[in-house]
Formats: sequence, structure tokens, C-alpha cells
Amino acid sequence: MNIGILGASGYTGVELLRLLANHPGNLTVSVVSSRKTLGMRLCDVFPELSAMANYDDLLFENPEDELLPSKADFFFLATPHGVAMGLAPKLLKAGAKVIDLSADFRLKNLNAFEQWYGPHLSPNLIGEAVYGLSELYGPQIKAARLVANPGCYPTSIILALAPLLATTDLLNHNLPIIADCASGISGAGRKSSLSASFCENFDSFKAYSVLGHRHTPEIEEQLSKIFGQPLGVSFTPHLLPMSRGILSTIYVSPQTPVSQQMLDELYQNFYASHHFVRVRPFGFEPQTSQVRGTNFCDLAVYHDARLGLIKIISAIDNLCRGAAGQALVNFNLMTSHHLRAGLDLLPLRP
Amino acid sequence: MNIGILGASGYTGVELLRLLANHPGNLTVSVVSSRKTLGMRLCDVFPELSAMANYDDLLFENPEDELLPSKADFFFLATPHGVAMGLAPKLLKAGAKVIDLSADFRLKNLNAFEQWYGPHLSPNLIGEAVYGLSELYGPQIKAARLVANPGCYPTSIILALAPLLATTDLLNHNLPIIADCASGISGAGRKSSLSASFCENFDSFKAYSVLGHRHTPEIEEQLSKIFGQPLGVSFTPHLLPMSRGILSTIYVSPQTPVSQQMLDELYQNFYASHHFVRVRPFGFEPQTSQVRGTNFCDLAVYHDARLGLIKIISAIDNLCRGAAGQALVNFNLMTSHHLRAGLDLLPLRP
Amino acid sequence: MNIGILGASGYTGVELLRLLANHPGNLTVSVVSSRKTLGMRLCDVFPELSAMANYDDLLFENPEDELLPSKADFFFLATPHGVAMGLAPKLLKAGAKVIDLSADFRLKNLNAFEQWYGPHLSPNLIGEAVYGLSELYGPQIKAARLVANPGCYPTSIILALAPLLATTDLLNHNLPIIADCASGISGAGRKSSLSASFCENFDSFKAYSVLGHRHTPEIEEQLSKIFGQPLGVSFTPHLLPMSRGILSTIYVSPQTPVSQQMLDELYQNFYASHHFVRVRPFGFEPQTSQVRGTNFCDLAVYHDARLGLIKIISAIDNLCRGAAGQALVNFNLMTSHHLRAGLDLLPLRP
Amino acid sequence: MNIGILGASGYTGVELLRLLANHPGNLTVSVVSSRKTLGMRLCDVFPELSAMANYDDLLFENPEDELLPSKADFFFLATPHGVAMGLAPKLLKAGAKVIDLSADFRLKNLNAFEQWYGPHLSPNLIGEAVYGLSELYGPQIKAARLVANPGCYPTSIILALAPLLATTDLLNHNLPIIADCASGISGAGRKSSLSASFCENFDSFKAYSVLGHRHTPEIEEQLSKIFGQPLGVSFTPHLLPMSRGILSTIYVSPQTPVSQQMLDELYQNFYASHHFVRVRPFGFEPQTSQVRGTNFCDLAVYHDARLGLIKIISAIDNLCRGAAGQALVNFNLMTSHHLRAGLDLLPLRP
Repeated sequence: MNIGILGASGYTGVELLRLLANHPGNLTVSVVSSRKTLGMRLCDVFPELSAMANYDDLLFENPEDELLPSKADFFFLATPHGVAMGLAPKLLKAGAKVIDLSADFRLKNLNAFEQWYGPHLSPNLIGEAVYGLSELYGPQIKAARLVANPGCYPTSIILALAPLLATTDLLNHNLPIIADCASGISGAGRKSSLSASFCENFDSFKAYSVLGHRHTPEIEEQLSKIFGQPLGVSFTPHLLPMSRGILSTIYVSPQTPVSQQMLDELYQNFYASHHFVRVRPFGFEPQTSQVRGTNFCDLAVYHDARLGLIKIISAIDNLCRGAAGQALVNFNLMTSHHLRAGLDLLPLRP
Repeated sequence: MNIGILGASGYTGVELLRLLANHPGNLTVSVVSSRKTLGMRLCDVFPELSAMANYDDLLFENPEDELLPSKADFFFLATPHGVAMGLAPKLLKAGAKVIDLSADFRLKNLNAFEQWYGPHLSPNLIGEAVYGLSELYGPQIKAARLVANPGCYPTSIILALAPLLATTDLLNHNLPIIADCASGISGAGRKSSLSASFCENFDSFKAYSVLGHRHTPEIEEQLSKIFGQPLGVSFTPHLLPMSRGILSTIYVSPQTPVSQQMLDELYQNFYASHHFVRVRPFGFEPQTSQVRGTNFCDLAVYHDARLGLIKIISAIDNLCRGAAGQALVNFNLMTSHHLRAGLDLLPLRP
Repeated sequence: MNIGILGASGYTGVELLRLLANHPGNLTVSVVSSRKTLGMRLCDVFPELSAMANYDDLLFENPEDELLPSKADFFFLATPHGVAMGLAPKLLKAGAKVIDLSADFRLKNLNAFEQWYGPHLSPNLIGEAVYGLSELYGPQIKAARLVANPGCYPTSIILALAPLLATTDLLNHNLPIIADCASGISGAGRKSSLSASFCENFDSFKAYSVLGHRHTPEIEEQLSKIFGQPLGVSFTPHLLPMSRGILSTIYVSPQTPVSQQMLDELYQNFYASHHFVRVRPFGFEPQTSQVRGTNFCDLAVYHDARLGLIKIISAIDNLCRGAAGQALVNFNLMTSHHLRAGLDLLPLRP
Repeated sequence: MNIGILGASGYTGVELLRLLANHPGNLTVSVVSSRKTLGMRLCDVFPELSAMANYDDLLFENPEDELLPSKADFFFLATPHGVAMGLAPKLLKAGAKVIDLSADFRLKNLNAFEQWYGPHLSPNLIGEAVYGLSELYGPQIKAARLVANPGCYPTSIILALAPLLATTDLLNHNLPIIADCASGISGAGRKSSLSASFCENFDSFKAYSVLGHRHTPEIEEQLSKIFGQPLGVSFTPHLLPMSRGILSTIYVSPQTPVSQQMLDELYQNFYASHHFVRVRPFGFEPQTSQVRGTNFCDLAVYHDARLGLIKIISAIDNLCRGAAGQALVNFNLMTSHHLRAGLDLLPLRP
């Protein structure tokens, strides 16, 4: 099978190349594209990818090239927001399957999309696109032509809350859910900007987008769908002085009595058959280094009986589970590979 | 004036020595003590302190030495929790003034203290000890013989909430205040432990003490005092892969209508005459690097009208504002120096 | 095949477990041992290793247990220096093959060994042990029962110099070779010490062991063997504020004329058939992040015509290429697996 | 006295502002300029500088403004290379004294300058400009109108070698001096570039400009002047994953017998009256964190008797000692302030 990666000069694209190199299937990366590095050798831009025979000969092509749709059977779109909605129709028309790692097809609510991202070029595809969170939408993903890969923060938050919202009426939904999250800097992409520079971020920590982040509508749309009623989420992202990893600490007010044991069982059962979510035993603290480079989401749930709060902590790797790894799971489902193919990786630690 | 620093081989002690070297008063550090480094030269243990004439001749003495109380007029106790309550009576009896940087005299509630720290050796001094948060207790500190220097997390949280709790009845106190905080690793002290090692912490982020941290009773006691009623605080500390700095993101539910402008004015006014609290204009994000090495607390307050929440963010340097810097302010008040003496420092950045 | 890892609670042991989990062979890790964590579950000590079925049931055993030699067919000894020389005879006697990742069998010169490490308990095995640098000693490793896995610094230095010393008489051996090297902190192992603490190392850089490091005799013994005459190497290690990676910058004085092109060809040819050494084209700068988590050694060679010097720069991952990854190559050779089995990994970047 | 800082939006400019805020003299920063941030408030661009009364009202002015020369008595030029040589004549003509922190006036050899930096606009000022290394040129600096502040790498290397070259004939000058140096990333300035981004540099280490760096002619010109004969220096810079600090490890071949004691005495004596050079006792390892934020240069010298080499290690803070701190020493000399005014700072550690 021939694979195309459009937008391959960003960190998400490179992470896909790393994972695909380890995939046991009979796959060939036949196209990589990027406007920024057009015409350059992939391995000149990313020397770390060299010596894997398949990659050494790849040149960056133009994503707008008319022949491009015919050069692969499956496309990963790792392009900036706003690009995939122009490319996807052509690729689908040529018979390819597509996973979009940008935000273009994540929101079913077109108004919410256009408020945060501007006009949508392919609104007719929004309905078809399947939200690519495999623990919740596995069967739909298997059958999909077009998958919208979830955002990194939404992945960490939705997986943390799904057991509580999907299977219980514990939640006091009159109070906002509070999601206090922190991400490594690779979440901002591979770019030349002062705000992404080493000296501005090293040895420092701050919140950003405090009164509004474009991931909020995605988080609320998905959680409301799971819960069956509209939910409000106060989402505050922070920037960590490290490359990879998201830790979300989430505060929920229950409306009925609850116990630690009940919560532990709820989470263990909900994810019992889902390899890539590790529900930690009571007292274990999820830590981003324990999931680095992997598709795992590590979860811990705590009952604060004194104050009547539930705290849930989730750790993921934003580039892997929050982007390329999750996309590969979706690829495996859409192409009948083993769910874990290419992803049986343990974290690099330390 | 002769100054003694007991427990001078930890990071708090070294930070005091850094600040005192820059103090314009006629001060001499006459005693440094530490059981761990007993008999060693200060500048052999900390070569970075050398070439400042006063420090090159100092040797670490035994904190239990009977002559020690007579060797200085003013003592800073930077000893581990549990030590100061044994030393303070002797030092006070010898006529010295004392600032304790440990937790020994912070809690007025003896039961709460003993639950977290064990038996108290000097319960009779608890009543006399003044809580050393100068923005709230300046006059009492001026008159004190014994000051209990606040904890680092409590400092960042109390300064963030004081305007709201002291001067308004905005707070819906039926809901817990949520304090989601993150600290650099120096907060754990200068020690040989796997949990403080480079490789276990670098490039990683996690929450810890999720269901209970010993700073919680201090935070709740002080906030309840300001508010005039018992308050519950859900405090969750996290560990940052950096040396210094605490950022607290605090979520409060108001019970009455509120506006951004009202909040901005409230905070600006409350701290108008307090040099070391910088209330940031709307849209500015406090960042730990902007206070590094200084006694500043940078604050921002945000009204989330959509969800009916107030968010307050505060940034301090845990070793300076959260320990040694704040102690030096208290020293200045207790010895009639200018409040800012030794502390007119701008952050080292980057 | 059953695999035993003795000393599995250190970073080298964990790295072996990470790599073995990705190995396509029919391997089972049947034994892990560690005195420090005796009786504990492997996945309680290292939660990041959980959810790989094979590891979840492993308990740390006692390395001195008499039944231990019979519990595996192949042993990796990742124990501290001085332990393997006691264990190896028993394991070999029981019919197992052994790779020792410590220094115990690296030096053929017993005097040099005992000067740096103390008395040797199994001097009779020194002659049999094969130095496990597969690019140089592949055939011998294939036939070996006991392999001495090279040190991390020596690996980076020997690979950088081998083409020059083995195939030319360019070197002016009257002048010392200068090897200026820097390593991430994981090289010091997983331990509780102030010198390995986060705060003592973060945001700092220093040289250490400036007048003598125990890797020097290993480096000189191997280089002299390749060159055919005694060579002196001035080796200066430095400590980097990062977890993994060694970069060596090496300065050599040629005795005869040389050109950039000659050097490029020499290095390209020497390593043409060696997958795990990537000789970089002129102008590419090896960087530790480009080899992180992999078995690659990236090399660049530069001719400074103005000053008559050759500079060689090599980058490796100290825990992978410098320890566990190289051990796995040796395992593959000793057990007739494909050389690259378990090691077809691209670096995690960023 | 009114002070102007041109190019104040870079890290060197901000470091000057940090230091000047602590200066005991009667100084007012009356002008800051920057083309990039023209018209903005200084404290909006650098919120960390706020609450020091003098700075809150400063706006960035245009460095080309014709009235600018009359707005201050003393100018620090922290502009990019090539700018100061246009500004300096106007400022000097208006009667101001000038310290240039760029490379524009560092090289006496005009050919060497133009080879690395392009045409010189004020070649007639090159002869007048004094090289601002106060330990070597104190009297000349005192009398100067125009000082060329040394480069950061040259400062660390020249201070390390001056005792050896100035007072002995130990050096075998037929062999190149080898200077293996590493710098924090702030050395590259405050800029928007992929090469300065967090993700490209964090957790990584590499050499750069391996075959030629523009600091080489400055290093060689100064060392040759001290030695009295032309010297060749093989200078290899490396990039450290940290913000500040340079460590240089320098290798020198002696031509005559030497001992550790002789070297220790040589260095101790040479710098006995120079406060800002701390010659470390035998066995102490200079470390960048021990000089962070200060004007100190920490030196250690080692005799490797086995191989007949002298190693010298020097540590400085590139932004302070290597730029703004050194400039302030020069200012103090040129304006008859105490040499240490504004610089009696101990390092922030950890």
C-alpha cells in the first residue's frame, strides 16, 4: 500500500514517518509534500530519518500537484488548519482514504468552526467525517473514508471524562468542568517564531489563551455528545518547558455520593478492552515521561471526599497519542491491520 | 548587625546568602550552621559564594552549639521542619529576633499542625509567632520577635485570593476553591533522592500529593481568616521540569454578578501600595521567568463570563518570594530597614 | 528463548526491556533481578513498562539466587561494576551465553583494570571475553560465549577514530589525540545522589574527572590495538543538562598531507556496509537528538587545512548505542538473529 | 548621568537594563531604541522590567533619530553587527562616550573584519577603539571615548590563556591551541528562527561553525598580541540546551617542563588583584551555574603530566561577563565609578 503524507515538514508529519518506519505492514511512503521545503530531500531536512532505505530517496512535492492524488492509496494530512478542507475532496474523489490531523473536520457545528477558524471550504464533508477517537468510535472509523483526527488537548480530556459521562449520572452538570492542562512546546508546531524560541520558554511556565482556546468547542461538542446534554468546560492550557507531553488535571463536581472504589471500578471496566488506555491503580501518578513516544493515555481518578470533588489526571504524548499515533490506530482500523501495528512501543525513559 | 543562618546548606539558606550579599545595610553574616556540612568552609560547599569577602572565612557550625545564640543578633532558621521549634526558644531567650522559614510556627491550629508534622515542642510560642506575609500583616511583623515565614505554595495562593476574600462578598463559599499549582523542583530542597534526580524529572510533568499536601491546612487557615468563615481549598501541586518558580491557576465561583473591569480595579487598588505585587493589565500572562530571582508576585485576574468563573493566576519564585526574599522583607520590617533593601533586583532573563 | 536481565532496576536494564519488547524474535524475558528492588513487581517500579503482557507479571529476583542460572538461556548483566565478574562464571557454567554491560571484562590489561576498579574475581575469563564493538569484531562476537559490551564514551570515540587508525598512517602519534566529550546525565546511572540531582545539573555545564576517568584505559587499549602501536588519548568528559546523548569532538594531528575529500571517502568506505554508523556528508552537524533512542552513531569528519588538524565529531545515545542497543546487536549476532532485529527505530524528535 | 541603550530589545540590552537598575550611581536610563519595537513601551515588551520607576515610562525610540545623540551622556550600543559603525561617529561627535557591544570595533585588522562582516563604515575609528577587557587594558579603557566590548567566546578564551601567554614562554606555539567551547542558546540573540526554537535545541547538543566562526580572528588577534607572535587557535563552538553560560575547555602543549604547582601559582598571581576572575583551587571544577548572572570568570588549570598537556577550563555567563556585565565594568572605568558598582551580584543558584 502506498502512503502519502501531506504537510510532512512539521513535527506531526515527522512523527508519522517515525511510526510508519516501524509498521509491520507492507507499506511504502510514496509521497511527502510541503510547500516550505518543496523540492528538498526529506533526509536533508530531517537527517535523523536517513538510513531507512525507503526514506532516503523521498523529495518534498507540491501538495497542489494535480497528479498527487494518484500517487498514494492513503493520505495523512498533517497540514496547517484550513488546508485539508481544500485537499480532501480531490483525494477522496481519486479513491483514496484520508485521515486529517488538522482541525478542519473535527467540529460538526459549522458555526463554531467558522467562529474559530474562518470559512469552511468543504462543509458537505463535515457530516461524513468520523471523529477519530478509537475507544469511542471504533466501528465508525473502520467504515470511514474520511477521519478527523482529534486534537491533542481534547484527546487527553475526553478520554479522562468518557467513563464518567457515558455510563453514570454522577455529574452535577450545573457546574462547569474545570480542565487545567499543560503541554510541551511541540504542540505549537515546527516554526520560526519568538514565542516558540528556546530562550523564551526554557526554565519557565505560564498559562496562555486563558479566556478562550480553539480547542474548547471541540472538547465541549464531544463531551456533550457523550453526556447527552450540553456541557460547559473551563479549559486553561499552560506551556511547559519541555518538548512533548500533555498532562490534564480535571475537576468535576458529583451530584450524588461516590466512593474511590466505585470510581476505580468504573474506569477499569470502561477501558478493560482498550489497550492504549492504562488506568492506574490508586496512588499511582500519571507522568508525561511514562507515555513519551507512545500511544498510551495513562489515567488516574481520585475522590476527594473532604471537598466533594472528583479529580482525574491524564497523561499523553501530544505528538503521538495526540496526533500521529492516534492517526496510525485509525489507519490500522480503516485498512484492517492489527490495531497495535506500528505502535507496540515502550516509552524512552529517561 | 550580626546575622545567623541556621540550616544554611539548603537552597533556602543559600538564597538568603545571595540576597544578604546585596543588602545595603551594615550587616555581617556571623554564623552559618548545618549538621550535614559541619566544619566545612561555606565556600568549599558553595564555590559560587566565594570572592565576597565576608563569606570566604565562614565555617559551618553546629546548630546545637550552646554558644550559638550569642553569636548573632538576628537568626534566620532555614532548617528542616521540626528543628526550629527546638531552637527558637533558646535564640529568643538570648535576645535575638527570629524568622523561621520552616512550617513550625505557621499554623495556629495545633491539631492541624500535629496531624501533618507530629508533636510540637514549643506550643507556647505559636500564639506569639506572626505569619510573615507583609502585604497582610505588615504592622504585626514590625513589632514581632518571632515570624513564621509563609510556605511557597500558600504565598502564591493567598496573594492571589486576598483582594477577593478580604474586600468583597463575591465568593460562593459553598463551592471549593480550586488551586491548581506547579512548582520547580527546588521546592523539594537540596537532597540526595531518586525522586529529586535529574533523569526522573527532566522532560516530564506530573501531579503529586493529589489527595493531601501539608500546605493545605496553612492555605485554608489563612484564607478562612481573611474571609471570616471556614473555606475549603482543593489544592493540587504539580512538579515542573525546571529549578525555580511557582505558577498557581485558581478557580473561584462567584455568587453575585461580576465584570472584568470590577476585578481589575479590585486587584489594582488592593495592591496599589504594595511594591512586590505586580497586578498585570488585562491580557498579560504571568510567567515564572518574569519573577525569577525576585520577590515579586505577578498576578492576573480573568472573568470567564460564559461559564461564570473567576480565574486568578499568580507567579512567584519559590525560593525568593516563597522563602528567602519574603524573609528578607520581614527582616527589613523587624529591623527598620527600607522594605526593599537587598531586594531591588530584576529577574535574570532569559 | 528465555532472557535474563540482572541489574534490571538501572537505566541500562530498563532500556534493554524497552528494546526487547520491540524484538521480532520469539523471546521471553523470564528473569529480572535487582537487590535494591528485590521482590517488587517490575511494573510497580517502572509503570511505563506495563500493558506489555510479558512484563506485567515479572518480579525482581535475587541475583545471588542459586537457581537463577537455570532460569534463562541468555543473560544480560547490567549490574554495577564488580558484580558481573562474580556472576558470569556461574551463568556460563550453566550453559548460558552472557553479555556484560559493565566494565568487568572490557580491559585485557589486568593491571589497568585493577588500578581503576580493584581486584578482579575472574581473571581467567578476561582472555575469552570479546570486546563487543560489532563494526570491528563481528565474527568474534558471533562465536563468543561472553561479550564485554563497550563503555559509552569509548564507543563514541573508537567509532570516530577507527577508519583513520585502521587503514591509514595519517596520524602523528607523537602528539596525543584529544577527545573532548559531553554526556547526558543518565550516564551516571539511576541513583540517589546530590550530584545527580535535578537542581545541581539543570541549566549548567561542567567538565569532570578532568585528570583521569576510568574509561581512559579502555579507550587507549582499543585504539592502540587498532593502530598497532601505543597511543595516548587526552579524554575530558563533560556533563550536559539533558538525559541522554554523547557528543565527542576529537582532534587529531596528521603527519602527512590530507584533504577533505580523502577523509570523506575514507569514512564513507570504512562504514559502507555498517548500517548503524551514518557518516554524514560534508557540512552536516551530528546532533545527539538525531540519534536519541537509536543504535546509530552519526559521524562527521572535517579537515582544518589552515591549522593542519582533523576534527571528528560523533554522536550516540549513551543508553542505547552506548549500552543496551549495542548489547542487543551483540545478542543478535550471538543468537543468529538479524543484526537489526529490535533496533529498526528512528529517533523520537523533538 | 543619562544613559542611552541602543538595540535595547535584544537579550544584551535587557541584561544591561537589569544591571543598571542595581547600580548605586546616580544614573538615569533616558533612551532605549530598537527598530523592531519602535514606539512600544519598554515594559510592555519586557513586563519583567516593570515596577522599577525609571523604566515604566520608557518608549522605544528610533536609533536613527537625529536628536538621539543629545538625549544621553553615555551610550551602550547593543545593536546587531554592522549598525554601531554607523551610529558611533554621530554619538562621539555629540560628546558622548560609547561602548559598542557588537563586533564592529573589535578587530584592528580591517581585512579580517571585512572578510567576516563586510565593509566597514568607520575605519578611521578602529585605531581609537579600546578592546574592553578590563583585566588587560584597564588604564586604556579609563581614558577611552570608544570601547569595543569583547565577544563572549573570546572573553572566556583570552582570560583562560592570558597568564600563560603574557608571562611565560611555556607555550609550544608550533602547535595550534585547541579551544573546545560550548554556549547557551542566548548567544544567538533574541530572534524568530527555527534554529533558535525550543524544540530544535532542547535535550540536544551539537557543534556548529566547525570550520570557521567569526570569533576566530578576534581570538587570534588578541592572543597573538599578548604572546607577541602570531598564534593559531582551533576554535570549535557547541550549542548547549540551556539559556546562558559558556564553558571553554582549552588544550595547550607546553614546550618546557611544567608542574601543577607552577601553573596554580602563575594563575593565582596573575589574577590576584582582579576581583572578577576567580582562579579555583586544584580539583575544583568550574561550572556555568556558578557564574550565572554575574561578571565572574571562573578558571581552573590542570597539568596532565602523563600526556604533556595543559588544560584550562573557564566558565562565564555569556550575557553578563561576555556582554553586558563586562560593558558595565568598562562604563565604571570610563566614568570613575567603583569597578564593581552594579555588579556585586552572586549567582542565582539553583
